[in-house]
Amino acid sequence: MPFFSKQFKLAKQLSTVQLIVLFYVVAVAFSTIVLSMPFFKAEGASLSFIDTLFTAISAISVTGLTVASTAETFNAAGHIALAFILQFGGIGIMTLGTFIYILFGKKIGIRARQLIRQDQNRTTLSGLVKLMLKILQLILIIELIGTVILSTYFLSYYDTWTEALIQGFFGAVSATTNAGFDITGNSLIPFADDYFVQFINIVLLILGAIGFPVLIEIQDLIRGKEHGINEKHAFSLFTKLTTITFFGLIVVGGVLIFLFERTHFFADKSWHESFFYSLFQSATTRNGGLATMDMNQFSVPTLLMMSGLMFIGASPSSVGGGIRTTTFAIMLLSIFSYAKGNETIKVFGRQISQVDIMRSYIVITTAAMLCIASTIVLTVTEDFSALAILFEVASAFGTTGLSLGITPELSVVGKFIIMFLMFVGRIGIFSFLFIIRGKEKKDVFRYPTEKIIIG
Amino acid sequence: MPFFSKQFKLAKQLSTVQLIVLFYVVAVAFSTIVLSMPFFKAEGASLSFIDTLFTAISAISVTGLTVASTAETFNAAGHIALAFILQFGGIGIMTLGTFIYILFGKKIGIRARQLIRQDQNRTTLSGLVKLMLKILQLILIIELIGTVILSTYFLSYYDTWTEALIQGFFGAVSATTNAGFDITGNSLIPFADDYFVQFINIVLLILGAIGFPVLIEIQDLIRGKEHGINEKHAFSLFTKLTTITFFGLIVVGGVLIFLFERTHFFADKSWHESFFYSLFQSATTRNGGLATMDMNQFSVPTLLMMSGLMFIGASPSSVGGGIRTTTFAIMLLSIFSYAKGNETIKVFGRQISQVDIMRSYIVITTAAMLCIASTIVLTVTEDFSALAILFEVASAFGTTGLSLGITPELSVVGKFIIMFLMFVGRIGIFSFLFIIRGKEKKDVFRYPTEKIIIG
Ligand SMILES: [K+]
Ligand SMILES: [K+]
Repeated sequence: MPFFSKQFKLAKQLSTVQLIVLFYVVAVAFSTIVLSMPFFKAEGASLSFIDTLFTAISAISVTGLTVASTAETFNAAGHIALAFILQFGGIGIMTLGTFIYILFGKKIGIRARQLIRQDQNRTTLSGLVKLMLKILQLILIIELIGTVILSTYFLSYYDTWTEALIQGFFGAVSATTNAGFDITGNSLIPFADDYFVQFINIVLLILGAIGFPVLIEIQDLIRGKEHGINEKHAFSLFTKLTTITFFGLIVVGGVLIFLFERTHFFADKSWHESFFYSLFQSATTRNGGLATMDMNQFSVPTLLMMSGLMFIGASPSSVGGGIRTTTFAIMLLSIFSYAKGNETIKVFGRQISQVDIMRSYIVITTAAMLCIASTIVLTVTEDFSALAILFEVASAFGTTGLSLGITPELSVVGKFIIMFLMFVGRIGIFSFLFIIRGKEKKDVFRYPTEKIIIG
Repeated sequence: MPFFSKQFKLAKQLSTVQLIVLFYVVAVAFSTIVLSMPFFKAEGASLSFIDTLFTAISAISVTGLTVASTAETFNAAGHIALAFILQFGGIGIMTLGTFIYILFGKKIGIRARQLIRQDQNRTTLSGLVKLMLKILQLILIIELIGTVILSTYFLSYYDTWTEALIQGFFGAVSATTNAGFDITGNSLIPFADDYFVQFINIVLLILGAIGFPVLIEIQDLIRGKEHGINEKHAFSLFTKLTTITFFGLIVVGGVLIFLFERTHFFADKSWHESFFYSLFQSATTRNGGLATMDMNQFSVPTLLMMSGLMFIGASPSSVGGGIRTTTFAIMLLSIFSYAKGNETIKVFGRQISQVDIMRSYIVITTAAMLCIASTIVLTVTEDFSALAILFEVASAFGTTGLSLGITPELSVVGKFIIMFLMFVGRIGIFSFLFIIRGKEKKDVFRYPTEKIIIG
């Protein structure tokens, strides 16, 4: 009964997207309530409803754009509550993000599929729970190690061990979930000269944004070695493609920041300062949203390029947003293939399916039009430079969280547009189009194909 | 012998692209020499070599970006020479543009193909000549009518009939070829209150930018009616798609300019002034490059949107540049089709081929990356706002010719980047990729297809 099984599959797909939306609505509502509790607020601090909603969406989508200083608005209990919300948001996103891809039949490594495919190769709810527990386990291990390292190290920074612990815990969670929130009051600027803290943060940011399938394949590799298994470990095409793109973007971004700022922000800096500023600010566009400096100090070319990097975002099935690394990689590969006169895209001994290429392009162009339209509307409603607005839009869509500082001054309309972008950037254009799309229609009749002139 | 016929076809395709490049190099060299002639210069005026080269490329690509005032740099004889260069550029582009599409087997209406397909359905050089003569004939008729109307009308503007004739002639040629050059010294700003001149200009701009296949099909329709032929006249899919997109963009652009400027530039203007400013400035982004006002008076949202409109550009097989209307239309249609759950794009009782959709996306993304990269590099080399640079880049790639006035102040590197963009925008990304691409390779072996995660 191929017809019925198709119907059944469709129903499952639709309900998964609905599940994501439902997760969002419930999670945001819950977080808004939690964050509006008076006993989580710092003394004398208050937050309007729309700003609380904004903070909740920013937290659940682990973006990190803030309309009010997290350090000054919430107290220590509030910071711990916020860390749990970030945790919840990050893991929920990673789980549902992975789940939807598996449902769509995407190959994300045999291990990931084995985890949630059970009887008769069908995806079940218990598979989803299993997946979530696996992700939770991986993330918690990473965060635990991060917390221990950072808290211990922070003993030299803070007076009390409780403060060192809270800072270390929040820092590790915010970095691993790529949340971009900070309770230092000034992002990672206090650690601008502390390369150790920056290094630990970069590692945590990367582990969170590199994608769950990559993490699980690396874990398998390590375990295989531990157990002395010598069979050849094969990384999936997904892992190879996303990892190379991920690090490629960090390297290219870092080199360009270094070159663009050589005669500007880096003019009076040593080579190692310049190197770390470049590296950290490039890595943070992959999704972290933390920064070791005020973005306003960068020159225009750097800010434009960083907007592009944020738009691309992180790996799929990670805590990150944007159009995703694989989408960008497939676009580049398809242009190169075309320019070389190849009919198909071949990479790592595999062929990319025509459907995936088409979807990549749909994701990229829809995302670009969405960001351009948002930028234009915001230049109407807001009184900031087009560059600051573009940067904010790219940051929201990429759920990165970097800003030129305009977030708190946005108008109500502006805040809603940014909230919408954080939502779409988080669930991904692919899922977004799936929410608004109708039922898949089999062609019952065909028109003659007519070729047409393209640019 | 399918193999040999394939080889033969490939050789033809490659040589056509080479023909276009050759046409460019020769035409630019010739124009540079002509424009450097001292007896074409106004008294006391001079132009450096790079500025002459810039003017020549701008003229041959009928862009209209100028590093020096055309009115003040050249004398009357120089203006007539320039008009011939624009004519040559415009017709050459339209001919070669149409020719390459026919070679690629694109359906651009049966009449266009009949013109150049002769014995055994093969495209021949005599077909190319025939096509060029047909285009020349159509353009000359349009320009002649334009010259007569404008010159007669200009008798009330200018003191002598020779000046009215030169202004009318240059105006008609510049408008029809969408060249964007002016010898008023101030674009069409002197006619900001003259709706008749604006109307005639809009009509001429549209006739030049709507595409040759559309013109020829309209001519057939008119001739059929003249001869009382009652058989149903069928427009090609290309004509329908490009015409609807063309006018759709003008309407949307006009409405948005009207809304964006309501409280800005139009604040002290009457409804009919606002209407004509909106209409003209929207229509001119389709490729004209003439303007009835200083672009600097527009607000940021309008300038951003106009950059987008210029990037899209005119119809294929026209005198215009950019990614072309059909490319943009296919992108929109494919996103809508996907969102509606359709497997294929159906429009006007025809199906768009998968290859054309893919090519559209390659054209759009390559063009976007080229423009973004150019903008970033120019923000490094130039001292202007990112907005002014983006506007200039979009104008050069769209070969539109509008500017916020930075063209004459560009650095040498900046001028070369803009020249390159005018060149690529003119021949089109599709042809550009074809120049740099290798021979088409048949797949001799296949890799297994592996699905991957997309945004
Ligand atoms: K973030
Ligand atoms: K033009």
